[in-house]
Formats: sequence, structure tokens, C-alpha cells
Amino acid sequence: MIDFRSDTVTKPTAEMRKAAFEATVGDDVYNEDPTVLELEQVAAKMLGKEAALFVTSGTQGNQIAVLTHCVAGNEVLLEAESHIFYYEGGAISAFAGVQPRTIIGQKGVMDPGEVEAAIRGEDIHVPETGLICIENTHNRAGGAIVPLENMKQIFEVANNHQVPVHLDGARLFNAGVALNRPLQEFSQYTTTVQVCLSKGLGAPVGSIIAGDKEFIKKARKWRKRLGGGLRQVGMIAAPGLIALTSMVERLADDHENAKRLASGLQSIKGLEVVNSVDTNIVLVDVTKKGVTASQFIQKLSEFGILAVPFGPTLVRFTTHYDVSTLQIDEALKAIKSL
Amino acid sequence: MIDFRSDTVTKPTAEMRKAAFEATVGDDVYNEDPTVLELEQVAAKMLGKEAALFVTSGTQGNQIAVLTHCVAGNEVLLEAESHIFYYEGGAISAFAGVQPRTIIGQKGVMDPGEVEAAIRGEDIHVPETGLICIENTHNRAGGAIVPLENMKQIFEVANNHQVPVHLDGARLFNAGVALNRPLQEFSQYTTTVQVCLSKGLGAPVGSIIAGDKEFIKKARKWRKRLGGGLRQVGMIAAPGLIALTSMVERLADDHENAKRLASGLQSIKGLEVVNSVDTNIVLVDVTKKGVTASQFIQKLSEFGILAVPFGPTLVRFTTHYDVSTLQIDEALKAIKSL
Amino acid sequence: MIDFRSDTVTKPTAEMRKAAFEATVGDDVYNEDPTVLELEQVAAKMLGKEAALFVTSGTQGNQIAVLTHCVAGNEVLLEAESHIFYYEGGAISAFAGVQPRTIIGQKGVMDPGEVEAAIRGEDIHVPETGLICIENTHNRAGGAIVPLENMKQIFEVANNHQVPVHLDGARLFNAGVALNRPLQEFSQYTTTVQVCLSKGLGAPVGSIIAGDKEFIKKARKWRKRLGGGLRQVGMIAAPGLIALTSMVERLADDHENAKRLASGLQSIKGLEVVNSVDTNIVLVDVTKKGVTASQFIQKLSEFGILAVPFGPTLVRFTTHYDVSTLQIDEALKAIKSL
Amino acid sequence: MIDFRSDTVTKPTAEMRKAAFEATVGDDVYNEDPTVLELEQVAAKMLGKEAALFVTSGTQGNQIAVLTHCVAGNEVLLEAESHIFYYEGGAISAFAGVQPRTIIGQKGVMDPGEVEAAIRGEDIHVPETGLICIENTHNRAGGAIVPLENMKQIFEVANNHQVPVHLDGARLFNAGVALNRPLQEFSQYTTTVQVCLSKGLGAPVGSIIAGDKEFIKKARKWRKRLGGGLRQVGMIAAPGLIALTSMVERLADDHENAKRLASGLQSIKGLEVVNSVDTNIVLVDVTKKGVTASQFIQKLSEFGILAVPFGPTLVRFTTHYDVSTLQIDEALKAIKSL
Repeated sequence: MIDFRSDTVTKPTAEMRKAAFEATVGDDVYNEDPTVLELEQVAAKMLGKEAALFVTSGTQGNQIAVLTHCVAGNEVLLEAESHIFYYEGGAISAFAGVQPRTIIGQKGVMDPGEVEAAIRGEDIHVPETGLICIENTHNRAGGAIVPLENMKQIFEVANNHQVPVHLDGARLFNAGVALNRPLQEFSQYTTTVQVCLSKGLGAPVGSIIAGDKEFIKKARKWRKRLGGGLRQVGMIAAPGLIALTSMVERLADDHENAKRLASGLQSIKGLEVVNSVDTNIVLVDVTKKGVTASQFIQKLSEFGILAVPFGPTLVRFTTHYDVSTLQIDEALKAIKSL
Repeated sequence: MIDFRSDTVTKPTAEMRKAAFEATVGDDVYNEDPTVLELEQVAAKMLGKEAALFVTSGTQGNQIAVLTHCVAGNEVLLEAESHIFYYEGGAISAFAGVQPRTIIGQKGVMDPGEVEAAIRGEDIHVPETGLICIENTHNRAGGAIVPLENMKQIFEVANNHQVPVHLDGARLFNAGVALNRPLQEFSQYTTTVQVCLSKGLGAPVGSIIAGDKEFIKKARKWRKRLGGGLRQVGMIAAPGLIALTSMVERLADDHENAKRLASGLQSIKGLEVVNSVDTNIVLVDVTKKGVTASQFIQKLSEFGILAVPFGPTLVRFTTHYDVSTLQIDEALKAIKSL
Repeated sequence: MIDFRSDTVTKPTAEMRKAAFEATVGDDVYNEDPTVLELEQVAAKMLGKEAALFVTSGTQGNQIAVLTHCVAGNEVLLEAESHIFYYEGGAISAFAGVQPRTIIGQKGVMDPGEVEAAIRGEDIHVPETGLICIENTHNRAGGAIVPLENMKQIFEVANNHQVPVHLDGARLFNAGVALNRPLQEFSQYTTTVQVCLSKGLGAPVGSIIAGDKEFIKKARKWRKRLGGGLRQVGMIAAPGLIALTSMVERLADDHENAKRLASGLQSIKGLEVVNSVDTNIVLVDVTKKGVTASQFIQKLSEFGILAVPFGPTLVRFTTHYDVSTLQIDEALKAIKSL
Repeated sequence: MIDFRSDTVTKPTAEMRKAAFEATVGDDVYNEDPTVLELEQVAAKMLGKEAALFVTSGTQGNQIAVLTHCVAGNEVLLEAESHIFYYEGGAISAFAGVQPRTIIGQKGVMDPGEVEAAIRGEDIHVPETGLICIENTHNRAGGAIVPLENMKQIFEVANNHQVPVHLDGARLFNAGVALNRPLQEFSQYTTTVQVCLSKGLGAPVGSIIAGDKEFIKKARKWRKRLGGGLRQVGMIAAPGLIALTSMVERLADDHENAKRLASGLQSIKGLEVVNSVDTNIVLVDVTKKGVTASQFIQKLSEFGILAVPFGPTLVRFTTHYDVSTLQIDEALKAIKSL
């Protein structure tokens, strides 16, 4: 089985399992789990923020950010295919009572001028803009990197209008490794940031949100309301700490594998790679194969290759720790033979 | 003063005032106000629906529709500049907990194929589509008429996916008069519809929502929660009844005046009419005058002419009962002289 | 027909109808209706607050107060049978996302010590107390007056904990007249206050909320979201102004009639008046008649007398402008004969 | 250190750590983690329900139950000091938009007649009752057991009115062991149930909700929105499975220890045990010691004994796996010497 469905499918490494086994733990609702406290400190430092909070998923981190930054009746600006808008079940409206206003980006990148034009204020007819969200790398744009310069410009717009910026950095590590830049260079242009430990970094469970102390204090309460206040968290924080400290650099391999895969797929008749493959995601249009995405995926699965649909004729392949270069080549061979 | 700001500014006619003065009234929370009951019956019949409900505004009617059709976590499909999304303070998210998903229309008209592609279902990551909203005529598209054929196609798409359709018909009477079609021809392609009595029809206050009996029963309870359950409603329902029965045909005058105004404005150097002037709204771009919308409006006001900004360089003029053809000509003369 | 169901059933007086007929009006969404502006000024002054806002009902006024004072996740302290908790459809939770925490009062009066004990703070497990609500007079306690001293004590508790106080004064005029005190003496112990024009004062429609300018500014936006932003409001504000200026003193008649009714009912075998009849409401227990409230009310209706159930064996009679002393006596005669 | 603060502080056992280390895992968002699937099956069977779902905390399980059973504008009936009302940050109102209506129980037990009287229906003024919640054992009533007969009666009332019943069984295992009854005897009188793995059973993290398949399907989506959809859940499900299969019977030791502690405390001058010590919780009033709960707890902590305040003069002691009988005696000795 070669599983390209998502980088979330990675199994915890032996080192992670060992860390869980040996973890020093305590009751985190009482702030007494030393392992999660260490993880939060390490993460805050990497992200250049005052404080950080462990959450059980990227969705939870994003929801907490919206709940903490906004009040009901606010509007949130985000990219039209961003994860928060597209894949979180409408939860920001259901829970925080905010209205998303989407901006159609180019490869996931919103134009700062359009963002500024979309900011709304006190007029009795309109919601006040409560938050701007950026996603980097951008999943539905095929793991596309949002350039630092763009983030800077949007942050300036936001500051001019006193609107906070939240970064959905579920795959921010991929951007950092691909551009060879520390994470702080991205997070400096944000008020708060969420990063996932359970995607490319391979931890079994968990994400981090980071911001200033006041934000994290409030976030902790919203996390409790969402049912994310846990007890002996060290058991899952310990693998998360391994993820943060030992697994970042190796993302470069995933990116290389993705390029290798893309190049191979592009050479197959009827397949067209439609994204620029900045990181670990390859989007392939199968239209010219005369099949739908679902049919193509079904066919692949018969060869032990798994991928996910990303549109009627679009298929997403994601590389990660549990897919080797050898498997890339095997997969390409099999796909060629379809 | 020539007031082109909105057709909402119309003063009640002498007949309406008399109707209010003489209205037979009762306590409508007990369903005992004969005048509002009559108004609701007349409206239901005009709209071809089983039942109707008086509400205090178009916004309230739209909010009730969303609250009644949807539950929190649903997604609502609507045009990107529709009133519900653009001008209702994000209330559908704040109150009903639904996520709007906007579709960019052509002159306010959504492509049925795009609507269908945007419908979402049971997947654990996505909100279920709970409602599709159409706005006819479309305010921000300059009073543009959404063609019956388009409404029919969207209704078919909606039916195929068992999603209800709500029509924000705040200015549906304008569409009816312009196309010379009874309102039922529009509302037949909807599950529920809201029409305003206080815009072109000149009533001081009020709107109607209509649908089947079960919908109206539930709507009544949501109206109560919103604080729209009133007492001796006849006092305002009586003018509303005049609006419905005596004021519809005359909308043709407003449309003629709008065309006259548009034609005059188009001939003025530096002004560009950017909409097709289907009904009573004229949108003018002032870019080539070298001024902003606000500056232009400020200038107009010095001549006793009022209009509203509709964008950085866009100005909206609306014709209505309290603007005569003579005043159109006066206004044009003044604007020419600017 | 002698209608004791509610003081909401009163028909507008001839003076009110005339005022509506002659009202100077404008578009209140643009703040241009002189009549409603006058009404708001007069009301603000009577209530001793900086500013006031016309709303379409007491429920709308209360909902706006909660929406403006609180954010989702707050807790609101109020009496266990208060209108906001008991009769507003759970709307404060549905719209504002707040959790009501009820305190069981004595005749509608909450113990200040219990209120203080119920205030909650920053602990991660608990909602923060966002608002304390008082209802005066208290409807379900039979129009009971909450003493000024009690209001003062609760306001002190609230101030000590920096929690605002909202007064649901739907029938505050009754308290004022009964105690012969100006309204400001009550509202001085509140942050905001809502009073109804459509109950004892006889206006067809409407209520007022009052508070400081900042509150009213925000309240105006929440009113718009609820669909309570209206156009030529003068048509209903004009009767409201009559209500405020000409109808207050006569509430004394209603109170006298209520006492007359209570005294008569008490003397009828099997009926027990269970409230102290401070104002215009009489609560009668019919247990010893061997019937349920519904059966008793059904029987009454056969004699042209209307009342409402207030529990399995409890019946509420309300006196008002449209019930004369003569009718009280007629009613008593009929009830005696049952 | 003898930690009586909560049974949540227990450290995972060596067996649990080993289970985590060796756990077979998969991506549970794709339903592919065999360990969590096994845990859910085992739990469903123990609880006599069709299906079960792993959630990260008791709060999350309760929130999901309310979100799945109810819609905004519903009312939820629950005991006045129940965890859902008292300790979950008002989340059921913030997220689900429901209004809690509290019933004051005797030792946590609601009177079925009062529950029935509190059920509300379609009247336009009132919220519909959407759910009845029971908590067994009842935390704030001192781990009090709600008798099976009471649960049966409430379930009958609920069925008669077609209202579902949710059981917050965070400590249901304690009730089962204390009464020597299988869990199904309790859960048979409920529509859905939540049980915690991380309290007396000692698992580091997690709870279970159970109900019919349709409920669990919807619950899975609400869990995703809350950010509780996790990846390689087996790492925490494996210890949870040990908790379910090996740790239940030993709760009897905690109960015996609690009785031993209670008996000792009662014999100390100035201390009064105020609950019946049905299970593993002892509530002590310190009034006659002339100190507040906080002062008493502070004093205890100087002797290495931890407990939590449960009111101004009330202190909660909880026994659990990490407190031995020897430590009970040590603690009593120390407290006697205060």
C-alpha cells in the first residue's frame, strides 16, 4: 500500500512511541503536565510568540483563534478555498457566530489591495471585520507557499485597520523548509498562528496555537469549552516534542519526492500536474484520461495506491514520512501502466 | 431637496395615513388583528403561497427565512453582493450560525452550474448546504432583474439536491412591473419569498414573508424571538395594504424616470452609467470626473440632490414615488452644471 | 367582551390615531424621523439616561440589551420566572449565546446576597457573569413591585463586580405610579432599561431601551441585525409619544380596578388571590373550585370574560385602559354566578 | 504529596503506557485506527448502545450530545449544579444556542414530577424542550448516586413527551461498582450516555459517548467541528481500553477509602462531612473550624495534602488510584494535628 492521501496518515516513529511510554505527565487542566509545558515553550520560541497552547487538531486551533479574536456579528476575511472556510464544517459561523468573507486568491495568495477593500467598519448595515486569516502553505492550492512579502503586506493592511491576523500554518513547516527560513519569519507577520504536529512532522495527534500571553489565556478557556482541556497530555505531547525537534528538516525529502512524483506524473499521457509543487502536494488533473477523479482513484487503489479527490477531475497526492523515494518510483510505474 | 438615496425614503401617502387612522386593530400576538390578517392573506395570494407573515423589515424577513430553513453548521449559497450577505451585519451567522458561501454573479445572476457545484453534503469536513438565496431585483447590481429562466434553473438544481430556495424580493415588485409579469411567476421558483412594502410601494414600515403553512408557523416563533411579534399591527398593516393594492402599477413611472435619469447622466462628461437600468436604480461611475464617490455626493448635496456611495467611485441613484419627472430634469440640469 | 388577558390588548386611543395620521416622518435608518427622535429624547429624559432607542417590542429591547452587554459564553443572572428567561423563546441563548443562571426570587425579588454568590469569574471551568437582569414590575409574580432598596443593593453588588444591570421595565410605569415615584428613581440603579409603550400606556406598538450613548450606538446596530431598523417610524412613534406624555397617570385607575377585582374574587368561594396585587395584575388559584385553569378560563369565556392560564390551576387577570370599573363589577357578578 | 483534588490526576499505569507504546494505529479521521475502533466497540457493548465514539474529554462528549440532540432555541433541562451547567463555561449556550433550565435536585436527584412540569412546547413565547440531562454520579452532590428507579421515571416522562435523555456519566462506573450493577442498567434509561476514561479508571485522556448509529454518525461531524477529530488515536485509545477492561472493579477500593476518610474527618472537631459518601467523593464543611475553604486548603497544602474548594466553606476530597489506604490514614493524622 502506498498511501498518498494525506500527510496525516503517518504512523508515529519508534522514537515517538518511546517518548510517550516514558513521558513525565501531570493533569494539564491544573497546568501540571511538564511535558506539555515544555512542548508549548519550545513551540512558542520557534514561532517567536510569547506563549503557546497545545490543541488536539488544526481545526481546533483555528476555531479557538476565531473564538478568541472575534465576537458574533464580526466578519472574517479569508481565501475562498482556505481550510477554515472549506473544510471545517462551517464551524466558525456555528460556534463563533462570525460571517466569513472570502477572497479568491492566486495559488492561495490573496491580493493585499483586495483584502483592504474588503475590510468593513461601523456602518449599521455591515459586520465589522474581526480577523484576517492566511493559510501557508495553502492546501487546496496544492501546498502553495504564500510569499513572505505578501504576508508582510497583508499584515500592514491589517495593522492599519487594527484587525488581527491569524495564520493557519497547518503545513507552515513545509513552507519554512522549502524556503529555508525559520518559522518566525512567517509568524512575525501574524497576531496568532496555528501549526500542526500531526501532518508532515509525523506526530500522532496535536497542533499548537501561539500568540501573546493574553490571547493564550483566553484561548485556554475556549479550548476547555470545546472539550480540548485534557489531563495527562504528556502522553501525546511527548511525541509532539519529537516532531518539533527531530522531524522538521526531513520535510525536504517529502518535497523532493513530491517533485519526483510530479515530474513522473506529468510525463504520463492524459495526466496534467496543475500546481507548482512548492512543497509536498501534487495536484493532477485527469480530464484527458477521460475519467473522473473518483474513477481514477478507484483504479489506483486496485494497485495499492491511495489518493484523494480534490474536485470532479482533480486528484491530490501528498508525500510524507511513510512514503519513500522507492515507493514514488513504484507508484509511477504502476500509474504509467494504467 | 431631491432625494435619490433610496426608495425607502418615501413618505406615506395621504391614503395610507387615512388607512392607519381608521384601521381596525387587535393584538396580533393573539392573532387577532384583522387588518394584518387581511394583509397577510392578500400577500400570500399575490405570491402564490399558502401563507404569509408581516415582518417589520426586509432584513427581518430574510433573517427569519434563514433561521427557519437552516440549523447551525449549515451553509447558505448566495450571490457575493446580495443584501443578505452584504448589508445585514453578518446576522445570518450571528443568529442562525450558518456559513454563507458566496457565488459571484453576472449582474446579480448566479450561474446554475456554479450553484450546483457549490452544494455540499454529508462529508465530515463540510457544512451541509441548507439554503440557496436569490435576490430579485438585485440591489448592488443596480436593480438588475434576475431572469425567470435563471430562477427556474436554480430551483431545479435546488430540488434535485433537496435544498430550499429563498427569494429576497425586497424589490420583486419592480421586477414584476418591468417584465409585466405577476409575482407568482417569480415565486413559483422559490420555497419562500420576502417582499418589502416600504420601498417602491411607499408604505412606512414592513415586509412580508410567504411560504407554506408549516414554514409560516415556525417563522412566527422566530419572529417572536427577534422581537417582531407586535400588538395592534393594523396601524402599520393598513398602509401596507394600500401599498400592495394601489401602488404596484405606478412603479413603471419610477422605471421610466430611472431611464430618463440614466440617459441624462450618461450624456454628462466624466459620468458613466454602469448598470443596465432594468428598474429604478442607476449606478454611476465618477472616476473620469476625477473625484471619489463621496466627493461627488458631497458636491451634489450642495445642490439639494442626495445620493449614496456604492463603492469608492460608484454612486447609486434610486427613483421612487417622491421623485417626479420634473425633478429628474432639474437634477440633471444641476449635475450638468457641476 | 371583557378582556383581562393582558394590558397589551388595549386599542390605540383616538388621540393616538390622530397623532399617527399627522406624524411628521422620515427614514429612521438614516436617523431622519423627527417624531421618533423626539420620542427617544423624551424617553431618555424620563429614564434619566443619556440616550434612548425605539424598538418594536419589549422582547426586542431585552434581546438587544443582552446582545449589546454580553458576548457568547457569558452567563446572565435573572429571576427564575422573569420574562427574559420564561417567555422569550430561549432567544438570549439562541442569539447572544449566553447561559441564563436563574435565581428564585420572593415575589419576583432576588436576594442581593444570592445574586452576589452567583457571580462567576475567570476560572477556566465557568462562564463569566456578563449581565444581571431585574424585572420590575414582575409579571409572573403578579405585577409585583421590586422595591427601590432591593434594586439599589443589587446595583451595588453589580458595581462591585463590574457587571452591568439591565432592567426589564415592560411595566415599570406601573411601579412608578403605584409608588408615586419618577422612573429615574428606578433606572438610576441600572445600566440600561427597557420600558414598553404598548402595555398599560396603550400605544399600539413599541418599547424603548435607554442607556449611555455608547450603549445606544451599539444597540442600534444589533437592532438592525434583528430587523428592527425601520423607515417612517413616526407613524408608530407618534402614538408612543402620546402614551409617554398622556397615559402614565391613569395607570392608577388600573391599579384601583385590580384591587377591586382582587377583593371581589377573593370573596368568591373556591377562588384564592395569591399575589399582593401591587399594580394591575391579579393571580387567582382555582384549585378549590375543583377545576383546572384552562377549564375555568373556558367557562369564563362563555360569559364573555377573557383571562389567561398562568399555571395548571392559576389564572391571570390584567386590568388596563380598555376595562372600566363598571366592567370589573360586571365581571365579578358573572364569575360569582359560575 | 497526597492529592485528593480529583480522580483526574491519576497517572497512567505501566500497563497503559505499554499499551500506548505498542498500539496498532491508523488515521481515525478516515476511520482506520483499529485500536480506537475496538475501544468504541467494547464501550458500546458495555453501555448497551448500538455505537460509541471516542472523544477527548467529558466536556466534549456532553457538548456533542447537546449539539446533536438540539437546535438553537431549544431548552435543556438539567440539575442546577450539574457539570454541564456549572462547569462547562456556558458552552451549551455559546455553541448550541440552547437555554438551560435548571431544576434543584435533592443530592443531585431531580424530581420526575418537576422535570415533567418544566417541559415546554410549541407556544410562541417559549423554547421547546430539546433534551433532559442527568448526571450520575453527581459531582457537586458529592459523588451521589442517582437511583435507577429515578432514572427510569425520568426516562418515562421524557418518552411521553418525546424528549431525549442524555446521561453525563463521567463517573458512571463509580455508580455501577457501588451498586454492583452493570452499566447497561443505567444506560437503558437514556438515549445517549457519556462516560470518562480519565477519572477513576485512570486513563490519561478521553471519554466515550454512546447512542444509536444515527446519533453517532451526526456526533462524529460535530466532533470534527469541535476539533476532536484526531489522527493516530490508538496511542490514547489503547490506555483507554486498559481502563475499560482492567480498572473498573478496583473503584471499590476508592469507595472504601472514601468512607474511611469520611469517617476519620467526621471525628475531627470542627469538620462536618455533608454528603452521604456513596462513592469516591467526600465533602467537608469547615465552618466550625472558623476558617474558609481556601484557608483550610492552604493549611492542608503545607502538610502535602491537596484538596479543592467546593463553596465558601466547603472542601472536596476525592479518592482514586493514586491514593492508598495508608495515605488516607497519614492524611487523617495530619489533618487531626491542624
